Amino acid sequence: MTHTLPSEMHPQRWGDPARAAALPDAARGLVELAFGPLTERPAVADVALPASGLDDVLLDALRHALGAEHVRTDDDSRRLRTRGKSTPDLLRARAGDLGEAPDAVVRPGTHDEVAAVLAWAAEHHVAVVPFGGGTSVTGGLAARRDGYAGLVSLDLVRMKRLVAVDHVSMTATLEPGLRGPEAEALLAAEGLTLGHFPQSFEYATIGGFAATRSSGQSSAGYGRFDALVVGLRVATPRGEWVLGSSPANAAGPDLRQLVLGSEGAFGVITEVTVRVRRVPAVKVYEGWRWPSFDAGADAMRTLAQAGLLPTVIRLSDDNETAINLAKPDAIGADSAPGCLMITGYEGDAAAVEAKRVAVTAALEGLGGRCLGTEPGEAWAHGRFDAPYLRDSMLDVGVLVETMETATWWSNRARLYADVKAALAASLGDGAMVLCHVSHVYETGCSLYFTVAAKAAPDTLEQWLAAKAAASDAITAAGATITHHHAVGTDHKPWLSREIGELGASVLRAVKADLDPTGVLNPGVLIP
Amino acid sequence: MTHTLPSEMHPQRWGDPARAAALPDAARGLVELAFGPLTERPAVADVALPASGLDDVLLDALRHALGAEHVRTDDDSRRLRTRGKSTPDLLRARAGDLGEAPDAVVRPGTHDEVAAVLAWAAEHHVAVVPFGGGTSVTGGLAARRDGYAGLVSLDLVRMKRLVAVDHVSMTATLEPGLRGPEAEALLAAEGLTLGHFPQSFEYATIGGFAATRSSGQSSAGYGRFDALVVGLRVATPRGEWVLGSSPANAAGPDLRQLVLGSEGAFGVITEVTVRVRRVPAVKVYEGWRWPSFDAGADAMRTLAQAGLLPTVIRLSDDNETAINLAKPDAIGADSAPGCLMITGYEGDAAAVEAKRVAVTAALEGLGGRCLGTEPGEAWAHGRFDAPYLRDSMLDVGVLVETMETATWWSNRARLYADVKAALAASLGDGAMVLCHVSHVYETGCSLYFTVAAKAAPDTLEQWLAAKAAASDAITAAGATITHHHAVGTDHKPWLSREIGELGASVLRAVKADLDPTGVLNPGVLIP
Repeated sequence: MTHTLPSEMHPQRWGDPARAAALPDAARGLVELAFGPLTERPAVADVALPASGLDDVLLDALRHALGAEHVRTDDDSRRLRTRGKSTPDLLRARAGDLGEAPDAVVRPGTHDEVAAVLAWAAEHHVAVVPFGGGTSVTGGLAARRDGYAGLVSLDLVRMKRLVAVDHVSMTATLEPGLRGPEAEALLAAEGLTLGHFPQSFEYATIGGFAATRSSGQSSAGYGRFDALVVGLRVATPRGEWVLGSSPANAAGPDLRQLVLGSEGAFGVITEVTVRVRRVPAVKVYEGWRWPSFDAGADAMRTLAQAGLLPTVIRLSDDNETAINLAKPDAIGADSAPGCLMITGYEGDAAAVEAKRVAVTAALEGLGGRCLGTEPGEAWAHGRFDAPYLRDSMLDVGVLVETMETATWWSNRARLYADVKAALAASLGDGAMVLCHVSHVYETGCSLYFTVAAKAAPDTLEQWLAAKAAASDAITAAGATITHHHAVGTDHKPWLSREIGELGASVLRAVKADLDPTGVLNPGVLIP
Repeated sequence: MTHTLPSEMHPQRWGDPARAAALPDAARGLVELAFGPLTERPAVADVALPASGLDDVLLDALRHALGAEHVRTDDDSRRLRTRGKSTPDLLRARAGDLGEAPDAVVRPGTHDEVAAVLAWAAEHHVAVVPFGGGTSVTGGLAARRDGYAGLVSLDLVRMKRLVAVDHVSMTATLEPGLRGPEAEALLAAEGLTLGHFPQSFEYATIGGFAATRSSGQSSAGYGRFDALVVGLRVATPRGEWVLGSSPANAAGPDLRQLVLGSEGAFGVITEVTVRVRRVPAVKVYEGWRWPSFDAGADAMRTLAQAGLLPTVIRLSDDNETAINLAKPDAIGADSAPGCLMITGYEGDAAAVEAKRVAVTAALEGLGGRCLGTEPGEAWAHGRFDAPYLRDSMLDVGVLVETMETATWWSNRARLYADVKAALAASLGDGAMVLCHVSHVYETGCSLYFTVAAKAAPDTLEQWLAAKAAASDAITAAGATITHHHAVGTDHKPWLSREIGELGASVLRAVKADLDPTGVLNPGVLIP
């Protein structure tokens, strides 16, 4: 099992400190061309935390149930379980604000121990925040603590088993604390893969993928995470809940879909049974050039509606293409780079080649120009690195953040224009807005925006205003407030516009039924 | 628009009286070989109904809202909206029991009129049974009336519009009262198809497909109905609920999946937006022979896990194959017929041929023998006719009924054996049990059983005992109580074993939230 990544992330930064780097000089030059002279914005040193608000009498019962070493109240444990990894989360941490630190970090090792924590929390009215990889970018770890006796982070780090593999049905049962690479390593030993590779892959966990309805970069070939899940085991304050009798059925509403996306508000997912595939023998990634974003998106639509999708298909707009391809000596070149599409094929050699031939013929017929494998391999090589670059940019006073949505194909162009206009109006014309399509369906697609702007003195307020403007534009266009980042606390103000007041009411009713004392992730998801 | 089928079905029989027929002599000979001498079991003549329990003062408010002609209390209207089309439903009707007839049949023409009916029902505590095609085979139309002021059938027969078509996104918005052929005709005029062809296709409606999570005979190519739905409009006692911002998203749980399968217990579906495809230019159906049910099922699994499914794929077991292929002069032939598989390909000519070539190579490699198109065309020709044969068999004292389930591939053989054993133990060795696989997934498949037995004097009790034994076997094997027939009232006693007491509790909580006075389909679905 390859597992070389650090087990915890510092609240001020993403990922592995060994991979953090100052902005390279060449890139710094480009950024200064765009935004003017840069100013270092060092984060404050680690601050002391407020004392744990939970007293030892309360915690002793937990220590008895889990073992004392799995109930932690030291500053380091609590600091490293504070919030997630949105730019607002990082900005708050960089400013020394760790006010949302949990009072304790508890680490159950089994379903029954999770249940014991929930029973304890319900008895003492302590808020519980399930914690997997800590990669939320929507405030999913920022539970409310007002009115509660305290707040604990329920860390699933000890629940990392591959519980069962069914090679006939091609399913595997995984514990929630497994990170992406850990799950893939366990499955690879069985010749299997999950095929779920979101940008957060290196840190995010199986439980988190399920709780947030994650979607990975290979979604065209392997499907969204919610499409991979066939069974769930959940610990709720009212007891164990096991779902998944069959691949599909008509036994009332599919309640698996009620747990998927529930963001820790209904229960703690303790096992996930997923559809798996054989490890692909061959992986080929290629680049394509399109004369415009519209032309590339129409080609994606054509493939999706023809049932001819590769494993990976992504399309950058003109701005994102220009930035990604930019080399210092290319600046000022007057030939527009067009729009870069990445196509990826995974499987056995014959299947890869057959699909590649068919997709290539289709894309050429639609006006695409194949750029060979170099751009594809470059994308695959750096696919998990963007969050490190964000840290480097924040270090020199450039605000960087992402946001995403999805809509029907017929609404794509309007949504794209409206969100860009909203961001530009809020951040000013100097801001860069990049976009790509990374998830496609027969009926529509996602739009993933990356924003960069010279940081204002109050960078947090600057971004929150822009995000609100973009979110209003998304909702006004009838699109979803989030395609794969989940609701958390950040998207909650827009959720009722999407699912209706009745949808919000239903979520509250389910919450009240499963978590009657309201201790699970209070304030997250449910309007 | 082709619409030549009768608008209503007699409660004692399926479908079009013009297509009803006595058992042909040759078939009768075969049946007597199996079950011994047959005895005609004529149904009773139509009986008078109990008087409507709703008085005119109550109904006048509805007449004012909908128009007097759309609030019907005559015997014919009420008789034709009594129960569904399970064999128990038919047996009760044949015995003259129409005790569950609604007090009135109301026919709203718009979403707002549906809402008006629900408001009226909530105000006066009248139970409301949404009625589409009347094809339920699980008691889905047999709502409880005890404790209510009365019971009305909310007939969606006037809501048959194609509301919108989006040729770019390949979606269409349909009203719930459209029957299968009516929806297909409206879509065909746009060059489109839904591709949803359950056996009930000729009578069942769009709203019913959604409310029961139906699955059609072309599910391998087009997907289950719940996979086709991208948007819903629902009238609930608490108001309008509109869902469907995008093909997929992470904006909390996918609440569309809570409406799908809700069987009229949460609200009345007034619009369904579905993914559509272009009308296929070519349809090819072929037959294949397999030496055993296991060999054929393993071949289906291989195709499903290779992503190489035709549009239609079905496999009959030895018994079903023998019955379907039987001719009078074939009886006694000593060569076993093996197991018949039907494969169907739909699309443009090139795509059909490419898929057919690939599937043919795979199936031949797995030990199948292609029988050409004749068996395939024969299946396609008679695909909606089985319910007529059931009526003919009931007429001569042979009990016929179907039931279905689904499970993981690794559990298929056990489930098959256990259900067969349970049915044989209950009905005696003289009973025939036929089975086919008609819906396949990467991780598992459905099993659809047809049972025939010499009718006992109390035929209803005879079947209910066998069905209970089979349902117990299904549940004990961990499979689903229904793959595509829904829960209704008949499967309700087994539902909690499948979704857990917490699942049942969640359904009750959602019901209480959306339908606080409990007027919608009381007694159906919710344990």
